[in-house]
Amino acid sequence: MFEKIIENVNRTTPLVHCITNYVTVNDCANVLLACGGSPIMADDNSEAEEITTICKSLYINIGTLNERTIISMLKAGRKANALSHPVILDPVGAGASTLRTDTAFALLANIRFSVIRGNISEIRTLASGSGTTKGVDADISDIVTEESLDEAVAFAKALSAHTHAVIVITGEIDIVADSKKAFIIRNGHPMMRKVSGTGCMLTAVIAAFCGANQDNILDAAAAAVCMMGLSGELAHIRVTQNHAGISTYRTCIIDEIGKMDAGSLEKGAKIESR
Amino acid sequence: MFEKIIENVNRTTPLVHCITNYVTVNDCANVLLACGGSPIMADDNSEAEEITTICKSLYINIGTLNERTIISMLKAGRKANALSHPVILDPVGAGASTLRTDTAFALLANIRFSVIRGNISEIRTLASGSGTTKGVDADISDIVTEESLDEAVAFAKALSAHTHAVIVITGEIDIVADSKKAFIIRNGHPMMRKVSGTGCMLTAVIAAFCGANQDNILDAAAAAVCMMGLSGELAHIRVTQNHAGISTYRTCIIDEIGKMDAGSLEKGAKIESR
Amino acid sequence: MFEKIIENVNRTTPLVHCITNYVTVNDCANVLLACGGSPIMADDNSEAEEITTICKSLYINIGTLNERTIISMLKAGRKANALSHPVILDPVGAGASTLRTDTAFALLANIRFSVIRGNISEIRTLASGSGTTKGVDADISDIVTEESLDEAVAFAKALSAHTHAVIVITGEIDIVADSKKAFIIRNGHPMMRKVSGTGCMLTAVIAAFCGANQDNILDAAAAAVCMMGLSGELAHIRVTQNHAGISTYRTCIIDEIGKMDAGSLEKGAKIESR
Repeated sequence: MFEKIIENVNRTTPLVHCITNYVTVNDCANVLLACGGSPIMADDNSEAEEITTICKSLYINIGTLNERTIISMLKAGRKANALSHPVILDPVGAGASTLRTDTAFALLANIRFSVIRGNISEIRTLASGSGTTKGVDADISDIVTEESLDEAVAFAKALSAHTHAVIVITGEIDIVADSKKAFIIRNGHPMMRKVSGTGCMLTAVIAAFCGANQDNILDAAAAAVCMMGLSGELAHIRVTQNHAGISTYRTCIIDEIGKMDAGSLEKGAKIESR
Repeated sequence: MFEKIIENVNRTTPLVHCITNYVTVNDCANVLLACGGSPIMADDNSEAEEITTICKSLYINIGTLNERTIISMLKAGRKANALSHPVILDPVGAGASTLRTDTAFALLANIRFSVIRGNISEIRTLASGSGTTKGVDADISDIVTEESLDEAVAFAKALSAHTHAVIVITGEIDIVADSKKAFIIRNGHPMMRKVSGTGCMLTAVIAAFCGANQDNILDAAAAAVCMMGLSGELAHIRVTQNHAGISTYRTCIIDEIGKMDAGSLEKGAKIESR
Repeated sequence: MFEKIIENVNRTTPLVHCITNYVTVNDCANVLLACGGSPIMADDNSEAEEITTICKSLYINIGTLNERTIISMLKAGRKANALSHPVILDPVGAGASTLRTDTAFALLANIRFSVIRGNISEIRTLASGSGTTKGVDADISDIVTEESLDEAVAFAKALSAHTHAVIVITGEIDIVADSKKAFIIRNGHPMMRKVSGTGCMLTAVIAAFCGANQDNILDAAAAAVCMMGLSGELAHIRVTQNHAGISTYRTCIIDEIGKMDAGSLEKGAKIESR
């Protein structure tokens, strides 16, 4: 199902404008190259709009936001909307501070996002502020399990209907949903939680895939989620064979993304829709 | 001697608020995960205090300080003091510029630190400004050797008495001292000097260990110093076996920290007290 | 031909003041250590001049420039000029936004650079704005091939005559030129394009080599270009043997730089002059 998605990425080498945190920015740059895209990081007010103009998509990550970069996020986001470029949000730490929560809401109020990716807590924070999904939010436990999966899928679909963005909730089980359809993805490995930035990297790959597949955002996001998870599985095999550890694991994840093609992705994807 | 220290880290997964330089920030994030803690980087004025509130300890590193982040360091530090969270200082480059030296003194004047870790030159800079330790400072050669060790230990104890912080001086021989007791640690490998950020990473591990062991700061800091040094030794073995080089070595150091447990740490620690 | 260059680096461990982007800054720090130099990153206005004073050279990279750091670049650059320290420019993305292009011109107008390194598009942007090289610019295709090489060499020499800086144009074929002499270097591997920051890292190595060889900037830059390219070749062999990928490749490149000495560099260099 992902052949066309990957082909479009490889054919167009989508340039992704990243306004992202300085913790994992290098991993984001390298994973963008690995997945077939190309990165440009630019967060100054006076160039944010112009840089977005030459790109295929915009990636906004609030991981180390500050007063200066928040303005750039808003300016770049509005410009990308005007140009109909996909804009992808990673609301890192929404809920952890007033600044992060308020910024996430300000971004949602001013920018139309194609995809929002976070862990369940971050996504719940976004949902609870929207007013209409409070009830759903209260009923979902923090971690999506097989038992709470149906509820989480309904929550994701409802939030997508409200925000008009594809919602990606990652954890042991991943959910990729628009208002009508959801993919359940069971790729990945628990060791990924021990690597800083696997979430940021995934969102970067989503941004590249959406930049090259603007008319098929749901499938593009699902392909990225499968690719990141499957790379985590393959990297774990290599790390185990070499008696290595979690920093080698980080390196191997990006290696595997670089080696993956549509065929190996298709073969390894553990995906179902509901 | 470190069993309880490590057990407390593993049991509580201490969240560490890091205001640190952008050069080695990713290594700090990954080493915090590797050692059993969890990182959050946040340096904006308007969230620095709130983020510290949800954490177990605060890590301040002046490696790439600027006028904006210095304010955040002061605000977060005062808040952490008010909450009795351990605050750990890495005075990177104190002595190299007026801004760094002045900032280090401003931090010392406004914040009560649980641990200060630096190389001998950085620590000497802090001491010389304090007024009372100038004499000691002049007598210590830049590098702590077996010959100058007694003097260096006395210097560290005196500075600890003056600052009420545990003093960690790292180099070929490491010293971890409060006003009464000092540990001498002989773990580590000279190749560590060829990796950017081993000092920053160590201070991050100290912050995690202190966050989980607030009533035993001296032992927590000593455990972290042993762990970093021992990981450097084990990583060197792997790098030599694989005919690899210094960038692989950096990866292996974090790998080894992730693999280490209380038993292997205890077994490999080269520590004595005086 | 590079024996003396490398010997000077190893003898002096040149400290390089870096005002560079936050994407690849860690790679720059580690590659500086690997090649025999030492890094210090400092971008605050109030310490930029003082930090430059204690260094041997200044590396300015506009990859993630902002209004705050542009001022620091100008201040540090003027100070380095006053001290006759080599100043090295990496005009990342010049041509991609008005801010970057304008900043590159402002730096050229206010600072005397010893070396400017970029890809052909970035260097063309600098040249076209200078007024005198427009014609040459229009005639060079974007990628330097064997067919366009003579023209590219003439262009580089002319730009060097105009700017008084050694011009380094990197791509499949690398050119290192002053106004009279050019080196053509054919080291390197296509896989290097899949790693973020190989250009930034090379410019950092050039800065270290020039810091230790202030009276032989052309040869120092050429040695750095050969070393980076040759490391890319050797790293590719290791990656292929280990069935690894592009993130491992990044690590191996820095490993190889750390292992290289004057003898292996001399032996592997594919360099000619015209």
